[in-house]
Amino acid sequence: MTTTGTTTTAPSRVLAGWASTLRWQDLPDGARSAARRTLANVVGLGVGAADHPAVVTAMGALGDLGAAGDCSVLGRAERFGITWAPLVNGIAMHVEDFDDTHLRTVLHPGAPVVAAALSVAESTGASGAEVLTAVAAGVEVSSRVGNGICPGHFDLGWHVTGTMGHLGAAVAAGRLLGLDPEAMHHALALAATQAAGHTQQLGTMTKSLHPGKAAADGVEAALLAAAGFTGPDEPIEGRRGLAALMAPEVELEEMLRDLGSVWELEDNAFKPYACGIVSHPVIDAGVALREQGVDPAQIASVEVVVRPVVLQVMGVEEPQDGLQSKFSVYHCFAVGLLDGAAGPAQYSDERATDAEVVALRRKVRAVTDQDMPKDACRVEVVLQDGTTLNEVVDHATGSVERPMSDEQLRAKFELVVRPVLGERTGALWEAAFGLADLPSVAPLLEASRPA
Amino acid sequence: MTTTGTTTTAPSRVLAGWASTLRWQDLPDGARSAARRTLANVVGLGVGAADHPAVVTAMGALGDLGAAGDCSVLGRAERFGITWAPLVNGIAMHVEDFDDTHLRTVLHPGAPVVAAALSVAESTGASGAEVLTAVAAGVEVSSRVGNGICPGHFDLGWHVTGTMGHLGAAVAAGRLLGLDPEAMHHALALAATQAAGHTQQLGTMTKSLHPGKAAADGVEAALLAAAGFTGPDEPIEGRRGLAALMAPEVELEEMLRDLGSVWELEDNAFKPYACGIVSHPVIDAGVALREQGVDPAQIASVEVVVRPVVLQVMGVEEPQDGLQSKFSVYHCFAVGLLDGAAGPAQYSDERATDAEVVALRRKVRAVTDQDMPKDACRVEVVLQDGTTLNEVVDHATGSVERPMSDEQLRAKFELVVRPVLGERTGALWEAAFGLADLPSVAPLLEASRPA
Repeated sequence: MTTTGTTTTAPSRVLAGWASTLRWQDLPDGARSAARRTLANVVGLGVGAADHPAVVTAMGALGDLGAAGDCSVLGRAERFGITWAPLVNGIAMHVEDFDDTHLRTVLHPGAPVVAAALSVAESTGASGAEVLTAVAAGVEVSSRVGNGICPGHFDLGWHVTGTMGHLGAAVAAGRLLGLDPEAMHHALALAATQAAGHTQQLGTMTKSLHPGKAAADGVEAALLAAAGFTGPDEPIEGRRGLAALMAPEVELEEMLRDLGSVWELEDNAFKPYACGIVSHPVIDAGVALREQGVDPAQIASVEVVVRPVVLQVMGVEEPQDGLQSKFSVYHCFAVGLLDGAAGPAQYSDERATDAEVVALRRKVRAVTDQDMPKDACRVEVVLQDGTTLNEVVDHATGSVERPMSDEQLRAKFELVVRPVLGERTGALWEAAFGLADLPSVAPLLEASRPA
Repeated sequence: MTTTGTTTTAPSRVLAGWASTLRWQDLPDGARSAARRTLANVVGLGVGAADHPAVVTAMGALGDLGAAGDCSVLGRAERFGITWAPLVNGIAMHVEDFDDTHLRTVLHPGAPVVAAALSVAESTGASGAEVLTAVAAGVEVSSRVGNGICPGHFDLGWHVTGTMGHLGAAVAAGRLLGLDPEAMHHALALAATQAAGHTQQLGTMTKSLHPGKAAADGVEAALLAAAGFTGPDEPIEGRRGLAALMAPEVELEEMLRDLGSVWELEDNAFKPYACGIVSHPVIDAGVALREQGVDPAQIASVEVVVRPVVLQVMGVEEPQDGLQSKFSVYHCFAVGLLDGAAGPAQYSDERATDAEVVALRRKVRAVTDQDMPKDACRVEVVLQDGTTLNEVVDHATGSVERPMSDEQLRAKFELVVRPVLGERTGALWEAAFGLADLPSVAPLLEASRPA
């Protein structure tokens, strides 16, 4: 391995060592805040999706077959084992496509990393600050390895949340198990060789299985490494390792650039809308046009100009159910304009097949422009009287340039959690957002259970 | 999807339907025999490796953490859950690199497929013939999908036993759960998106984790599909599905060619030596030279001419322990000539560092020849008196052209099982090799437990 300045081309060992020895006091305020926000956001989503069909189906399959254990399933009374609870919680946190995004890699790190951390912390009794440090390390490592292989890794068709999520979950779990740098390196190796998930699965329940499995496999990898199970020296950077196999271009130095001083974690953005982030500018445009008083009945046609990736992952023209509608940029624009919102209610089976929504989205044509930034779009609406309206979104709500405030994040938390917990929603927010000062995750998990 | 003759370009649906509806009476005698041999061989290996460090380490990590259940762990008294037992059994069956090989794809289908089938059958009470039908379906589907993406998939660096093993395990488990074609298709989708395993991990414990995880994930995929969990239409052949992401070249029609009439299962070859199959011709050459009376002390130098893949996966020049010695073509030749054998004893830590072995293997030079067939090699030995000896192996022992007989297979079974079960070894052989006539796997699993 060669060393250039402060970086090296053996990122797996450097990242494992860094993650293993990180301390809460090493995190700058911005990183601490980002860790807290990342955790609170997906805890809320996990509770909110406790009765989602994908979650209920998974629990039905696993509940009778030895999955019972001591770890909490968010928003539910059942308890599952130390890998099964992360599997279900990871599905629940991600299934509404409402979680968080490291925009450069299109990784949604919250679900796999936090799902893994919560169950291990529940088993070991780790303090709140230790849990947030583990979450920070997991998000940072998974985002950074992603930086070295994206955009090619994503463009090929890998679901980054499934692949990089394995690494993040293993690192978070490994920290909470107290792995030393050597064992952490083995945990990373065990997770790397299990990295998986295809974007062919978008629009099906299996998309959210990816972060669930990443969380479960990550915990298992850390447990195996703690017991002495071994992997190779260069699981990520080796000639037949993760990077070479799963990306057309690899820049190893990107994985380590400014490690510990520039935090990728701080670029983890929170979703204001319950669908893939690449559609968010288009929803912003729909909401803005609604606020300008545009009458949907008067619209003759709509042209949205977006980056090509939008149609690659959001090109469903006639979604047949709620899950498919999350992958339809046409549906996204329509609900933005009709409802002024794009929460779980806008991606229900009913809304996906609503006559008014269908009529409007059929008027939408999408045009791609490779130079369009990821968080931007242009929309031209032609009314039946010939009037033309233009709406330009430079930075979508929830982007790094236009982040959600803590107040907006709490409002979103209320939106998803209140239907499950009612008046106890505030107590869960306090425990989740204030975890750094708690002696363990027990109060948070206690508050997450339905009455 | 287009249809040409009896094939189609939508293999996932065709293979799921075929596997779901296959009956024991549809299998020709050759396929029945191959299924029986495949199962008996890995059952023996699983029992034989019950105390292997990789198995003991994995059990230590998982045993205290909710993995206990109702399913048998081969050769051990513990019982694990319906996904945990396959995880451990899959590791045990593969860890000695002594199992079986579908030569065209370099897939070792026995471990993932049989490990999955045994635990599900133990839970459902399936008959012996049903278990063998499930094993046949699993081996066939995993080998055939492999045919469509290999050799490129393997050459890139994917460990085919980890990737295709997921599909085979899901199919075997799905059959034993009684999945209809639609549910089987979802099981295949759930398994496809989890397909993983890098050959970077060869020479470490994690190599054998691959079939273990394939077995466990396959069972889980089938359970999820049985409960109604859903995946996409084209998980294998879709634009962002398994084949496109994991292979440089894809021939979908190879997955379906002569399905049901030509059995890939019958090409599953059994290993006479406990290491990667690509080294077997070289071991045969060493054994043959020993039988000719060559004195190791008189050897000045050895040149082995092999296919390039041999050095890609077996190029370790100075193995430091038993596991690494399995990936050293130099070590393989040396023990073949010194011991006339290459069983687990020849790949122990002691033998890997033995002075006589080290001295001989340092005299071996490997030369690659792209035109050398996979199961062949040429060896030239120069003695200190200048004499030159040539040994040519056209087809290695255990190859399709020179298969192991049932008697040889039984002798191998005795070799690995007797140290664990002693005089009860014969009873396990009868139950495993005669499973087709048994009402369930219970007698086999009972016979596999140590006294």
